[in-house]
Amino acid sequence: MNDASTGPEPAHSARLQHLIREVLPANCFYAKKYQDICPADITTLAAFRRLPFTTKAELVADQRSHPPYGTNHTAPLESYTRLHQTSGTTTGKPLCWLDTPGSWAAILDCWHEIFQTLGLTKRDALFFPFSFGPFLGFWSGFEGAVRAGFRVLSGGGMSSTGRLRFLQEHRATVIFATPTYAYHLTEVAAKEGIALAESAVRLIVVAGEPGGNIAATRARIETGWGAKVVDHYGLTEVGPVALEPPSNPGGLEILDEHCFAEVIDPVTLLPTPPGDVGELVLTTLRRTACPLIRYRTGDLVRQSAVVRTITRLDGGILGRADEMFHVRGNNVYPGAIEAVVRRFPEVAEYRITVDQTGPLADLCLEVEPLPDADVQQAVTRIRRAIQDELLFRADVVLAPAGSLPRFEMKAKRLVVKR
Amino acid sequence: MNDASTGPEPAHSARLQHLIREVLPANCFYAKKYQDICPADITTLAAFRRLPFTTKAELVADQRSHPPYGTNHTAPLESYTRLHQTSGTTTGKPLCWLDTPGSWAAILDCWHEIFQTLGLTKRDALFFPFSFGPFLGFWSGFEGAVRAGFRVLSGGGMSSTGRLRFLQEHRATVIFATPTYAYHLTEVAAKEGIALAESAVRLIVVAGEPGGNIAATRARIETGWGAKVVDHYGLTEVGPVALEPPSNPGGLEILDEHCFAEVIDPVTLLPTPPGDVGELVLTTLRRTACPLIRYRTGDLVRQSAVVRTITRLDGGILGRADEMFHVRGNNVYPGAIEAVVRRFPEVAEYRITVDQTGPLADLCLEVEPLPDADVQQAVTRIRRAIQDELLFRADVVLAPAGSLPRFEMKAKRLVVKR
Repeated sequence: MNDASTGPEPAHSARLQHLIREVLPANCFYAKKYQDICPADITTLAAFRRLPFTTKAELVADQRSHPPYGTNHTAPLESYTRLHQTSGTTTGKPLCWLDTPGSWAAILDCWHEIFQTLGLTKRDALFFPFSFGPFLGFWSGFEGAVRAGFRVLSGGGMSSTGRLRFLQEHRATVIFATPTYAYHLTEVAAKEGIALAESAVRLIVVAGEPGGNIAATRARIETGWGAKVVDHYGLTEVGPVALEPPSNPGGLEILDEHCFAEVIDPVTLLPTPPGDVGELVLTTLRRTACPLIRYRTGDLVRQSAVVRTITRLDGGILGRADEMFHVRGNNVYPGAIEAVVRRFPEVAEYRITVDQTGPLADLCLEVEPLPDADVQQAVTRIRRAIQDELLFRADVVLAPAGSLPRFEMKAKRLVVKR
Repeated sequence: MNDASTGPEPAHSARLQHLIREVLPANCFYAKKYQDICPADITTLAAFRRLPFTTKAELVADQRSHPPYGTNHTAPLESYTRLHQTSGTTTGKPLCWLDTPGSWAAILDCWHEIFQTLGLTKRDALFFPFSFGPFLGFWSGFEGAVRAGFRVLSGGGMSSTGRLRFLQEHRATVIFATPTYAYHLTEVAAKEGIALAESAVRLIVVAGEPGGNIAATRARIETGWGAKVVDHYGLTEVGPVALEPPSNPGGLEILDEHCFAEVIDPVTLLPTPPGDVGELVLTTLRRTACPLIRYRTGDLVRQSAVVRTITRLDGGILGRADEMFHVRGNNVYPGAIEAVVRRFPEVAEYRITVDQTGPLADLCLEVEPLPDADVQQAVTRIRRAIQDELLFRADVVLAPAGSLPRFEMKAKRLVVKR
C-alpha cells in the first residue's frame, strides 16, 4: 500500500493490508458495512482513504440492535475475555468493548512502548490513584506495568487523602490521572497540610481530557506536585493512542505501529493539510478482535507540518468537535476558556454554562476561589482577558468555595442548555 | 523430611527443605529470628514443628521498626513488584505485603487450581463486584482469572445497584464476594425489584469471613441468588489457602502444594488432634519472596479426623481465636450467634456488643428487621434460641430498619467494650 501524494509511506502498510484482507471478511459488522467493496481493490492509501468512516453512533446503534455486544467481532464470542465500557459522555449510552487475549496483549505492548519512552526504570513505583471500574485506560496501564515488572501501587477504594498518604508511604515516583484529578489532589494536599512537592513523585502522566496540553493547567499541576507532567491520549475503543515524548514536549506522538492516524475536516470529511486543525481518525492495526476502520474520534488535533517518521499532533488534543459552540459569532472551545481561567492562581475550579435557548448563545463562567484569594479582582480580570483574547463577552460570576464538583474521572465542566 | 508419628508424609517435604535451607538464610527477618537454629538440623517434621512460630504482631513490629516494608525479604527490594495490605482489623495497623513476579505467579497458580476444582469453563463469565483496593484477594482472583483466559468482569467504582444491572447485562455466571456483601446484594436486588434468582449466576465464591460455612447464612445467600455458595479462604500474607470442593462440601481443603498447614492449641501451642478445634498455622511453600514459617493465623479450625491425601478443615473457618469471649461462664464465638440469628428470615442485619467493663461480660444483640416482618415475635424467639442453644441470656433488641452498617469488605459486627 503506497501513495506518495498523501504523505510518507507508512511503516504499517502490511498491517493495513492484513486488516483489510484477513480481518474484515470474518467480521459481521464490517462485512455488511463494506459489502460493496472488494478487499483486493484496496491496494493504495488513496483507495483506503475512500473507505467509509466508522462513527461511534453506528457502533452504539449496532450494540443496541444486537445486544449486548453488537456484531463487530472478528472471533467467536467465547474467545473474548476482557470487557470495558466507554464513559458514555458523548452519546449517553456507554459502548461495550471486548478484547481477546491477543488484542489485550497488543494493548499491553502499547504501554510497554510508553513506559520505554518515559524512561521508567525498576527504581520507579507507579501509582494508579483511581477505582478500577469499567474504563479501559486504568486497567490497561496497570496491567501493562505489571507485565513490564514495575512496582505497581493501586489506589482503588481509597479517599483522596488516603491516596496521598499511601503514595507518600510507598514512595510513588510516577502517577497516572486525569489532569483534573491530578490538580484536585494538590488542593486536597494543601488542605491536609501534606507537602506534595516533597514527595518522591517525579512524573505525572495525564490523560482523559485536555489539560495536559493547556499551559496554565499544566503549570498548576507541575507546581503543586513539584513534578513533570506528560500528556497521554487513548480511547476505550482504540486503546492507548499517543504520548507526549519527554524529549520533544508540546505535542502527542501517535503509536504508529498500533494505529493509523488521519486528520480530516469534520465538515467536508477531506484530509486536512498538516498544520490545520481537524478531526482525528484512527484505524486499529494490532488490536483487531473488534477492529475499527477510519474511526472518527471526535477529537480535534493539528498534525505537525514538520515531516517526521512518527505522526505528531502539535499541542495535543485541542478539543472535541461536538463541544465547539458559537458565542456572538465566535467559534469557541472549552479548552480556550480553560487556558485563560487557569492562569489565575486565585481560581480553584470553574464551570462553563452555554445557554443556546435564545437567538444568540450566552456564556456564563462560574469561578470558585481558593481560600483567602482576592477573587473579586480576579473576576474582573478574567472577564477582561476573555474579552481581549477570545473576542466575546462572558458573564463571569463567583461560585461559593467548595460548591463546584470535583472529578476523579473525566471532568464535566461544560453545561449546554439547548 | 519424614515423621510417621505426626501424620502422613506430606507431598511437599522437598519444598519445606528448600524453604529452610535455601530461602531462610537469605532473609534478614528469619536469619535473625532463627539465628540459633542450624538449617541442616531440620530434617524431620518433628524438628520442623519445634521451630518458633511467626506471629502477626512480630511482623507489624518489624515493619514499624524498619518502615515501610520490614526485613522479611528474600530478594533485593527492587525485585518486588506488587504491594498489598491487610485490612488491619486484628492489629489496627495494616501489614504491607510485597511480592516478586515469581511469588505473584505462585498465587495465580493457586487460583488456577481453584478454578479447576470449581469446574469453571470458557462459557463462564466471572464478576468481581468490589473496588480494587489494597487487598490481595481481589487482585489475585481477578488476575488469576485473566491469566487463565476466562471472561472477567470488574465492578470497581460502581454502586451496588450498578453492579446488579451490570452482572445481568453481561450475564455473569460466577461471583466473588464476602458472604456479607453477597447477602447485601440480595437485599438491594429485592429493593430495586431485580429478579436475582433469574440471572445467569450459578456459583458464588465467598471468602473473607465466616458465613460460607454457617448453614443459615449460606441458605439465605443461595435462596436470594438461586445459586450455589462455595467457601474459600485466604490471607494477604499467605495467599489463597483453601477451597470448599463442590464435590465434597462442608469443609475447606488446603492447597497443600502451596502451604503446609498445622493445627495447634492456641494456649498450649501443641498440635491439636484431628477432630478438635485449634488455631490454623501456615507455612508458605511457593510464595517465598516474603516467606512465613509456622505463621499463626488466629483462625480457628477443626482438622478432619478422616485421613485424606489433602488436609481438610471440617466446617471451614470456625472463628477467630481473638474474637472468643466469655459470657456468664460460656466460651462464645460470633459465628455461633450468627448461626442462630440467620435462621430467622425476618432479620436483615445484626450487631453484637460485648460489654466487658463490669465484673461479668454482657452481650447485647441488635437485630434489624426486614420491611413488613413481624419482628417482635422474632426477637422473643431469638432470645429463647440463644438461651436454649448457647446456654446464656442475651439482650436482644430491635434496631430501626436500615440503621445497621452494611459492608462491601469484611463485616465488623462485633463491638467489644473493654
